Amino acid sequence: MNDTVKFVLDEERLPKYWYNVVADLPAPPPPALHPATHQPLGPDDLAALFPLSLIEQEMSAEREIEIPGPVRDLYRQWRPSPLYRARRLERELDTPARINFKYEGVSPAGSHKPNTAIPQAFYNKEAGIRRIATETGAGQWGSSLAFAGALFGIDVEVFMVRVSYQQKPYRRALMETWGATCTPSPSERTAAGRAILAQRPNHPGSLGIAISEAVEIAVQRADTHYALGSVLNHVLLHQTVVGLEAIAQLELADDYPDIIVGCTGGGSNFAGIAFPFLGQQLRGGRTVRIIAVEPSACPTLTRGQYAYDYGDTAQLTPLTKMHTLGSTFTPPGFHAGGLRYHGMAPLVSHVQELGLIESRNYHQLACFEAGVLLARTEGILPAPEANHAVRGAIDEALRCKEEGVSRAILFNLCGHGHFDMQAYMDYFAGKLTDQTYDEGELAMALAGLPSVPGV
Amino acid sequence: MNDTVKFVLDEERLPKYWYNVVADLPAPPPPALHPATHQPLGPDDLAALFPLSLIEQEMSAEREIEIPGPVRDLYRQWRPSPLYRARRLERELDTPARINFKYEGVSPAGSHKPNTAIPQAFYNKEAGIRRIATETGAGQWGSSLAFAGALFGIDVEVFMVRVSYQQKPYRRALMETWGATCTPSPSERTAAGRAILAQRPNHPGSLGIAISEAVEIAVQRADTHYALGSVLNHVLLHQTVVGLEAIAQLELADDYPDIIVGCTGGGSNFAGIAFPFLGQQLRGGRTVRIIAVEPSACPTLTRGQYAYDYGDTAQLTPLTKMHTLGSTFTPPGFHAGGLRYHGMAPLVSHVQELGLIESRNYHQLACFEAGVLLARTEGILPAPEANHAVRGAIDEALRCKEEGVSRAILFNLCGHGHFDMQAYMDYFAGKLTDQTYDEGELAMALAGLPSVPGV
Repeated sequence: MNDTVKFVLDEERLPKYWYNVVADLPAPPPPALHPATHQPLGPDDLAALFPLSLIEQEMSAEREIEIPGPVRDLYRQWRPSPLYRARRLERELDTPARINFKYEGVSPAGSHKPNTAIPQAFYNKEAGIRRIATETGAGQWGSSLAFAGALFGIDVEVFMVRVSYQQKPYRRALMETWGATCTPSPSERTAAGRAILAQRPNHPGSLGIAISEAVEIAVQRADTHYALGSVLNHVLLHQTVVGLEAIAQLELADDYPDIIVGCTGGGSNFAGIAFPFLGQQLRGGRTVRIIAVEPSACPTLTRGQYAYDYGDTAQLTPLTKMHTLGSTFTPPGFHAGGLRYHGMAPLVSHVQELGLIESRNYHQLACFEAGVLLARTEGILPAPEANHAVRGAIDEALRCKEEGVSRAILFNLCGHGHFDMQAYMDYFAGKLTDQTYDEGELAMALAGLPSVPGV
Repeated sequence: MNDTVKFVLDEERLPKYWYNVVADLPAPPPPALHPATHQPLGPDDLAALFPLSLIEQEMSAEREIEIPGPVRDLYRQWRPSPLYRARRLERELDTPARINFKYEGVSPAGSHKPNTAIPQAFYNKEAGIRRIATETGAGQWGSSLAFAGALFGIDVEVFMVRVSYQQKPYRRALMETWGATCTPSPSERTAAGRAILAQRPNHPGSLGIAISEAVEIAVQRADTHYALGSVLNHVLLHQTVVGLEAIAQLELADDYPDIIVGCTGGGSNFAGIAFPFLGQQLRGGRTVRIIAVEPSACPTLTRGQYAYDYGDTAQLTPLTKMHTLGSTFTPPGFHAGGLRYHGMAPLVSHVQELGLIESRNYHQLACFEAGVLLARTEGILPAPEANHAVRGAIDEALRCKEEGVSRAILFNLCGHGHFDMQAYMDYFAGKLTDQTYDEGELAMALAGLPSVPGV
């Protein structure tokens, strides 16, 4: 009646290698470009920001990249993470679909972000780095890097989007408990921040601005590096541990997904669950429908332009070809703060251009409705970001019901919502609305995309 | 350098039986008494509140009580929970001690409370019950029963201590997301609540008052029962799944505890980790030092009187012999809300009287200091209640260092602190103080203990 179906993987089966989808793609992704010269980026161009080992991963076309022993050791604190068959949800929906979900909320920071925070801290420690600067929106990435920094004895400085800093003091407290410092962005600490505050003293901040500040801090001192929690190739690479485990767990279940649903902001969660399956398909395995789900209020993949753009507002970062709403675009303040980014990971953008994935967008009310249904059937309360994936999976399950077909659906429940209860309170109080961006602002941001001759 | 040592138990080794310490005690615990007649309580006296199966467990002297299949199924969502060797903490303390801890924060509600919420909901469902009324302080029990109610389709009504209801809206939102209703106590919904509000309209509430209200609601309708999250024998019984798993996990580690530390409010977490080891000792196994740690501001075991007392303020419950500060005692508002109860589980009280355990108390600042150290070394941020156990374990580890002796220490990290970040913020801001109760109030509360002739 109340069966729990959990597929547990022995610790020994924790993946020994991350999977790099670049090795299997029919065409290589366009190179990142130097912001000044517009020439393809070389390893030296990134040396002020990242250790060489991460730069190599960023540019690698190797299929498998070994997970260092100390990283696997630390992964083992919460990995392999469980994979559940959502039988109670299936019954509630009265669907013939088989819904499976991977659950990443079991990490100490409560999301999938430590999967990359741990190796990033490890490689920086190996390179003698003593301090890492980073940005965070809702705080999931910042708290994950704070966690990793505590374990490796690295100081972590987080620039937190000011509106989130004010709205989410508990995420900030979590970072501080792990010993990190947390500064509201834009701040007076950087030239980028000061320039913005001079124009608009109460600027609410954005991820693009916070990235500019963190990068500026990182390049100032030789003992300091920068870290990003999504978007980049090496970040997506680290997250493939999720999908690799899911493959092994579904083998135990004697099943294989027909459909994979992933929510996507910067793209690392989506890539983490989807790319290992995509790789099997590209190497001659079964074809999987892969659906990226994003917020309607920040529809990068579904409304953005595929173009070279900056990752940040101050245009300090390299240019990467991606689906973008323009680096000056400020998404409205909906609750899935982790999905509020103007761009999409270049690799995710590239596989969409290759026709290997679909994308769709949802408004937030429909996502919260799905999240509450998951909480009441499966007992796990998802983060607002994860609710997008839940919504997508439920819609596919309902389609199976309509069509009378049993398909296997897999999604990643990328984090719990214990730090997002204000959003649920607002939802229950009827205070939450479906937000939209300003079409004029989007047009202006897209018109401002950098012109990159010859590409 | 950053090793994680986790002892994983195969799912098949999830215990099939709970352990009842009563079977092995050298003397039976004193019986509970009817509040009016002062005669030993019979099963019928509890029939309005609990299903027969739980009443039988409450009064059982059987050593092993089978865990029903559907309960084990649901336990498997997060059980067996991990046991960690805290090597990074050991290195930080530079201690020869071997510190092991069980981690119950992996449950969907974030604490050990679902271990009893699930079976309580199961047995009530089996008995045809459609609604359960309960109380909660900080909210860990209320949210756990809300979680269990959602899985079994039982309505859950929670009376939440008013001061916590106001201070912890997110715990309330968690309960509501799982579909429970949550009422601040004292409320106008019960005679007990109305009587208190008539005297003091802004009464902050207490666990004793909230229990009175929940019991009153439960006895009004045949389809409604009451549930308690600690104190009672059957609740302690269900929590032994924690200690039973720990025994198996330490076997994998080829170790056995010299010292067990448990924080204790009502007593169920403490009993859960300690009683299975105590049972082995009583059956001729190794002797273990077992240390109950409680807050200095509510020092039931260390300052209370061992006497018959009521479990609630309105004196609706049976009389049980326990260490008590008096049912009218209101502990000061320190942050470990789950430890703010005037009484102690009769079974825990009894084993202290038998000389089988020690007890000590700590002020909250020392506990938060310990919790932050654990977060920064082991990466897990404990709930304020759990910080008491961490403090106790650290002090024992430091004693090992002083004495140059390697002892094995085991404690239960009974829940994460993700809903308690305000307390950590106050701690870092220097706003937290060590609180003490009023000696005069304690004396008065103890003077008001019921007189029970002949015992």
